[in-house]
Amino acid sequence: MSKYAFGIDVGGTSVKLGLLSTDGKILDKWEIETRTEDGGKNVLPDIAASVKEKIKEKGIEPSEIAGAGIGLPGPVDENGVINKAVNLHWDRVFNVAEELSGLLSGMKVKAGNDANVAALGEVWQGAGKGYKEMVMVTLGTGVGGGLIHDGKIIAGATGAGGEIGHIVVKPDEAEACNCGNRGCLEQYASATGIVRFIREELEASDEDSILRHTEISAKEMWTAVEKNDALAIRVAEKFGFYLGCGLSIIAGVLNPEVFVLGGGVSRSGDVILPFIEKNFKAHVFHACSGAKIVRATLGNDAGLVGAAKMVID
Amino acid sequence: MSKYAFGIDVGGTSVKLGLLSTDGKILDKWEIETRTEDGGKNVLPDIAASVKEKIKEKGIEPSEIAGAGIGLPGPVDENGVINKAVNLHWDRVFNVAEELSGLLSGMKVKAGNDANVAALGEVWQGAGKGYKEMVMVTLGTGVGGGLIHDGKIIAGATGAGGEIGHIVVKPDEAEACNCGNRGCLEQYASATGIVRFIREELEASDEDSILRHTEISAKEMWTAVEKNDALAIRVAEKFGFYLGCGLSIIAGVLNPEVFVLGGGVSRSGDVILPFIEKNFKAHVFHACSGAKIVRATLGNDAGLVGAAKMVID
Repeated sequence: MSKYAFGIDVGGTSVKLGLLSTDGKILDKWEIETRTEDGGKNVLPDIAASVKEKIKEKGIEPSEIAGAGIGLPGPVDENGVINKAVNLHWDRVFNVAEELSGLLSGMKVKAGNDANVAALGEVWQGAGKGYKEMVMVTLGTGVGGGLIHDGKIIAGATGAGGEIGHIVVKPDEAEACNCGNRGCLEQYASATGIVRFIREELEASDEDSILRHTEISAKEMWTAVEKNDALAIRVAEKFGFYLGCGLSIIAGVLNPEVFVLGGGVSRSGDVILPFIEKNFKAHVFHACSGAKIVRATLGNDAGLVGAAKMVID
Repeated sequence: MSKYAFGIDVGGTSVKLGLLSTDGKILDKWEIETRTEDGGKNVLPDIAASVKEKIKEKGIEPSEIAGAGIGLPGPVDENGVINKAVNLHWDRVFNVAEELSGLLSGMKVKAGNDANVAALGEVWQGAGKGYKEMVMVTLGTGVGGGLIHDGKIIAGATGAGGEIGHIVVKPDEAEACNCGNRGCLEQYASATGIVRFIREELEASDEDSILRHTEISAKEMWTAVEKNDALAIRVAEKFGFYLGCGLSIIAGVLNPEVFVLGGGVSRSGDVILPFIEKNFKAHVFHACSGAKIVRATLGNDAGLVGAAKMVID
C-alpha cells in the first residue's frame, strides 16, 4: 500500500513541488527555478533531481511511493504527450510522462495540462470535494479552465478540453483577442477585461469614482464595489454579464453540479459572486440551473494537489 | 457469453424496438404504439410484453440475453431515474430501469435520455465509429444533442448533458424561445429557425425566389440552395452562422474529435455542411479546430442501436 505521492506544478518561472500522503495531505512543499534556457532542456532533469533528493532526505522507500504527477502549461493528451509549451521554451511534441519516468528510475508518472490538473485538485481536496461533475474556471490575466466528469479530467481530443477562455460570446466584437478571434470570453471575464471596462467607464464621463484615485486594476475595482462605488459597480455588472452568460452556456453543454472559480480575480472574495449568479440564472436552461457557483479553496496548491491525485487510484 | 440485446427507443406516438446481436447488427426491428392515456401507465408493461413475445417467438434462452436498453424523451440520470416525461404523460420521478427490469423478470436494464442514447448508437455503429470524443447534435423541430466521452455517455448532473439547444448564442434576441429564454441556439439552428429566416427574407424584399412558389420548409430551402437560389442561400448562411458559432463554442468547452449531425435537417444532405464548416472555422479556438463535422448515418435506428449498447460491455 503506497503512502506517498509527488505533485509537480510547472510554471514559466518556478516549479512548485509537493510531497503528499495518498489521502491528500500536503506533507511538504517547496519550489525550484524553471530553467527555460537551451529550449528548456533542464526542466525535467531538475525536477527529477529535486524529487530524488526529497526521497533521500525523508528516507522514503520506493515501494511506499504511488508515483509522481506533473501539471504543465500546455496541451497534454490522455497519454502524457505534450504539444509544445511556449512558456517552457519547449518546441517539440514528446511524451513528458515517459521522459520523467525514465529520469526517476521508472517511477509511475502521469502528466496533464495545468488548468485540468488544478481542477482535479479542487474536486479532490478543495471547493469541489464531494462532487463528480465539475467545471473549474480560472479567472486571471486570461481565462482558462478544466472539466471533471465522474471525478476525472476530460482532456479532450488534443488536450484542450476546458480551455473555455476562447469560446466566442460576442461575435460582433471589434477588438481582437490574443488568439486572433473576436469576442472571446477571455476579453471580458479576465483581469485584463476588467481593466478595459474600467478605462471605458472612466473615459465615458467625468463622474467621480474611487477608481480615478487608485491604480487601475481588477483588485481595486472589487474593493471599490464593496464601498458601493457606482462606476465600479457598472464594471462589475459588465464582467458579471459576460461570465454569467459564459457559465450558462457551459452549463447547457455539460450540465455540471458545480462551477469552481479560481485564479487571481476569484481571490477578491465573495463580492464577485452575485454579479455572476444573477446573469447565470437569467440565461441558463432550466434543466441545468441547479449548478452551484463557488470560489476555489486551494489557491496556489491546487496544481500540485491535483498532480499528485493523477497517480493515486 | 451473451449473444443478444434489446434496444428500445420510446417516442410520444410509437416505441421502436430492436433485437440486436452483441456485435451491433440489427437482427429484427418492429414498432408498437405508445399508449399515453392514464398517465402513460401502460407504456412500460406494453414494452415488456412485446420483448417477452419476441423472446418466445425467436426461441431465445435467458442466458443468451445481455439485457435491454431503453431511450426516453426526458432527463434520465446515470442510475436510470427519470424526472418526468411530458410526451409520455409521465409526471412522476421514478427509476425506469428498475421498473422495466421488474417487468422483465429481473433482466438487466439500463435507461438513458433519447438524444444521449442516439449519440451512443452513432459512436458505436454509425458516423462516430472509431472516435471516443464525440458530440451529437440533433437538428429537428428543435435542437438536441448528446455527449460521448471515452466512448460513453456524459449524462450530466440531472440528465441534461448535451441539451445544447438552449445555450444562448444571441443575448439581444427580441423573440422568446419555447423555454422562456431569448437567443437560444434552437431559435436559429432548427427547422423552425430556418422557416423563420425564410419568412424574414421573403418579407424583406420582392426578390423572386423558388421559395415564393413552394411550401415554406427547411427541406425546400436546401433544395433551393442546391439550385443556387440567392434568397435560399442567404437563409442557409444565417443558419450556418449560428450553428457554426454554436459548434465552435461546444468545441471550445469539450475539444471533441467529431461532431455528428442528426435529425431531420441533417437529412437534406451534404449541402448543409459548407455553411456550417465555414462559420465553425471562423470562430473556433485554434487548439480545438481539428474537430470534424459529419452527418449521422443510422437515421431512425440510432436510438435503438444506442439503447442496446448500454447493456453491452
